[in-house]
Amino acid sequence: MDVLVKDLYASPSEHTDQSVTISGWIRTIRDSKKIAFIEVNDGSYIKNLQVIAKRDRLANFEDVVKLPISSTVKVTGKLVETPEAQQPFELHADSVDIEGVAAPDYPLQKKKHSLEYLRTIAHLRPRTNTFYAVFQIRSLAAFAIHEYLQHHDFVYVNTPIITSSDTEGAGEMFRVTTLDPDHPAKTEAGHTDFSQDFFGQETNLTVSGQLQVEPFALAFRNVYTFGPTFRAEDSHTKRHAAEFWMIEPEMAFAGLPETVTEIEGLLQFVVQYLLDHAHADLQFLNDHVDDQLLARLHQTVSEPFARITYSKAIELLQEADVAFQYPVEWGVDLKAEHEQYLAEQVFHRPVFVTDYPRAIKAFYMRDNPDEKTVAAVDLLVPRIGELVGGSQREEREAVLRAKMQEFKLPEAEYDWYLELRKYGGTKHSGFGIGFERLLMYVTGMDNIRDVIPYPRVQGSINF
Amino acid sequence: MDVLVKDLYASPSEHTDQSVTISGWIRTIRDSKKIAFIEVNDGSYIKNLQVIAKRDRLANFEDVVKLPISSTVKVTGKLVETPEAQQPFELHADSVDIEGVAAPDYPLQKKKHSLEYLRTIAHLRPRTNTFYAVFQIRSLAAFAIHEYLQHHDFVYVNTPIITSSDTEGAGEMFRVTTLDPDHPAKTEAGHTDFSQDFFGQETNLTVSGQLQVEPFALAFRNVYTFGPTFRAEDSHTKRHAAEFWMIEPEMAFAGLPETVTEIEGLLQFVVQYLLDHAHADLQFLNDHVDDQLLARLHQTVSEPFARITYSKAIELLQEADVAFQYPVEWGVDLKAEHEQYLAEQVFHRPVFVTDYPRAIKAFYMRDNPDEKTVAAVDLLVPRIGELVGGSQREEREAVLRAKMQEFKLPEAEYDWYLELRKYGGTKHSGFGIGFERLLMYVTGMDNIRDVIPYPRVQGSINF
Repeated sequence: MDVLVKDLYASPSEHTDQSVTISGWIRTIRDSKKIAFIEVNDGSYIKNLQVIAKRDRLANFEDVVKLPISSTVKVTGKLVETPEAQQPFELHADSVDIEGVAAPDYPLQKKKHSLEYLRTIAHLRPRTNTFYAVFQIRSLAAFAIHEYLQHHDFVYVNTPIITSSDTEGAGEMFRVTTLDPDHPAKTEAGHTDFSQDFFGQETNLTVSGQLQVEPFALAFRNVYTFGPTFRAEDSHTKRHAAEFWMIEPEMAFAGLPETVTEIEGLLQFVVQYLLDHAHADLQFLNDHVDDQLLARLHQTVSEPFARITYSKAIELLQEADVAFQYPVEWGVDLKAEHEQYLAEQVFHRPVFVTDYPRAIKAFYMRDNPDEKTVAAVDLLVPRIGELVGGSQREEREAVLRAKMQEFKLPEAEYDWYLELRKYGGTKHSGFGIGFERLLMYVTGMDNIRDVIPYPRVQGSINF
Repeated sequence: MDVLVKDLYASPSEHTDQSVTISGWIRTIRDSKKIAFIEVNDGSYIKNLQVIAKRDRLANFEDVVKLPISSTVKVTGKLVETPEAQQPFELHADSVDIEGVAAPDYPLQKKKHSLEYLRTIAHLRPRTNTFYAVFQIRSLAAFAIHEYLQHHDFVYVNTPIITSSDTEGAGEMFRVTTLDPDHPAKTEAGHTDFSQDFFGQETNLTVSGQLQVEPFALAFRNVYTFGPTFRAEDSHTKRHAAEFWMIEPEMAFAGLPETVTEIEGLLQFVVQYLLDHAHADLQFLNDHVDDQLLARLHQTVSEPFARITYSKAIELLQEADVAFQYPVEWGVDLKAEHEQYLAEQVFHRPVFVTDYPRAIKAFYMRDNPDEKTVAAVDLLVPRIGELVGGSQREEREAVLRAKMQEFKLPEAEYDWYLELRKYGGTKHSGFGIGFERLLMYVTGMDNIRDVIPYPRVQGSINF
């Protein structure tokens, strides 16, 4: 049975001076006449294992040293500690079985490649140290989110991906259809006849699971979604993708203060989990991608996040000695430049902004007594801007109904949503975290395309 | 701060004779002149808390006893053990705050409703005991899967939902588009011009993440997907939905025997996790839905699964004293009736069937030396039939290329997939679990529509 390189690094003394077998991919070979130094990565850890192959011990020494990069080998040998060397131990090979011989034109040779080039070989880039670290962290962060929420009695709910509704009355959507593209069924009036489509009506990809998860909060108290969401936006920024994952917790019997507490608790747990479980990956990214990364993560878990109101934020922005591209006055939606200024320049850490103007927020957010603002919260973080958005939900049926008219939403489509207020309605709140934005924050990566295995953006759908 | 009813049941003695506060929904009220018995469910547990409200202690007694079912209350009182009664304890109310008054026509009154009717009120059905249990189990099963795989060094990968490829060269797909349905861009030849669509080409919803996760297995060794997949099938069975979730683990340096071991280990872990963490929910389903459920689950964790080859399965089916609808001979694909017969009548437990004819399996499965079969495995379980499908993957580039021609697949589309064999190709294997089929197995529910929060099937897309 193979030993994992990860386990060798975790407890080398258990294996020292013993015979171990590993399987992996060759990353580099340096050889002289009598000896070869082969760096092997077995996929279980970001670091390689150095294999020492000696001509006088290996019958196939000639074949081994000629292997192209990324060939696979199975090595059995003795693990020897090397306290003087760069790596803590090395494997003195007694045998090297060649499992697969790679073609010599493997694109990932030793030299450094640009992130842009690596995006074109998304099927190979997880083999680079940078993307190995990023996608390892993606996996661990996802699990940490589940672990925190499950241990805090949140029930995981898979809200639908194909939907007939548009959650926020905003956001361009993708249509889902099985109609013949060249000859779709037509109505008498000459329009596309969606009654002939797969679901008997026009359907779209979800932009948020929030409305559909609220009913579960009114049954299970604390619930969450964690799944893909979609925006067909003509947006070519580093922070937007057409397909991304969101986490949307929803809590009955909770208001805005409990929501703020839960956001902080969840994010601090995730960051601490990564510090505990992805140390080598974070260290690599800190050394090669963003030298502030570890400092920022340590601060995230050790200092409470800042808290201000939207009105105070506007004041701070108006007082700022900065030439913003977009002017600031009470009532405007904050742009990335404003959000980043507050988190980076004013607070130097994550900051909650609460009580936004009701006109710029979604219809379901609860009106505050001042009749101008809603019980909403955004969390702004350095480098990213908005990472989390949440609110207390409007549970008063009459207020919600009036607001839907004001916001020009078709009431009939939201019948079932209004019924949640009619039957068992109560105070409830929730929030949404953009998973990829969180990943940009915890990896230091600058472009959302580099934290998604196969990113989908306008005009591009490889793999 | 509210105490959770779940925690009262877990350790009643910690709270006995103390003042506790709970918030929840009224499930039933029985009242006489002086006293009322109010069953309150707080969402944290399938069981209710019985609240004793006395006229002489509560100023608002009249208002409380008139509350319609599903109204919300906040109750403070003393928790008293009741060893003689049906429930282990009750709450003697000192105050009952009315948080929300429900309308009196709440559809879920005390009487039992049909599952068909409850599907029409998917936003309310999680408040019934049956669906509370089902969706609690759905959440716990999802977490158990993550926990097992993470602790076995599998890296979670989010493969794309929108894709330009059709994984298995089979399965009807949903098209994803932003073209104007009434006036789509047209080519000179008069066809729909997908170069004008959002991604610049025709795109679909994924039917499987397997092909896209394989590259990650060749970087991380052990990986898995867990996400939604889609089939636009005109299939109105109890076991098919248009939108469902799959778990697809993939392992480098692993063959079919390791795959079989991993499937058994994962499923037994999940079932044991549910027995440990969802006891009350499973007991309810055993009492009211499927009286064989607990026996089946206990057997699942205590007995190894059976193992036979496809050829042996054909023999057993031909010897069977059963009039199958579909005749059986070597080379046919097994139907649900055959799969259920094997698992239920022959083995009385889950059974692995291996080495299927190559012609009826996907192109990427590895040819066996007999040139007639592939290194594939299906797991058949009682009541459901096929629950898991897996295989060793064809890693020999020339063999894979020839098979793609034989299966008439467009090679150009699979360039990157073939490159995995060219660069660092090695033995690897994987499997896919239909999450909803697993849920039917562990809940005893008979229809896939009843284990999905908002099911999507042809002609139906409410909520």
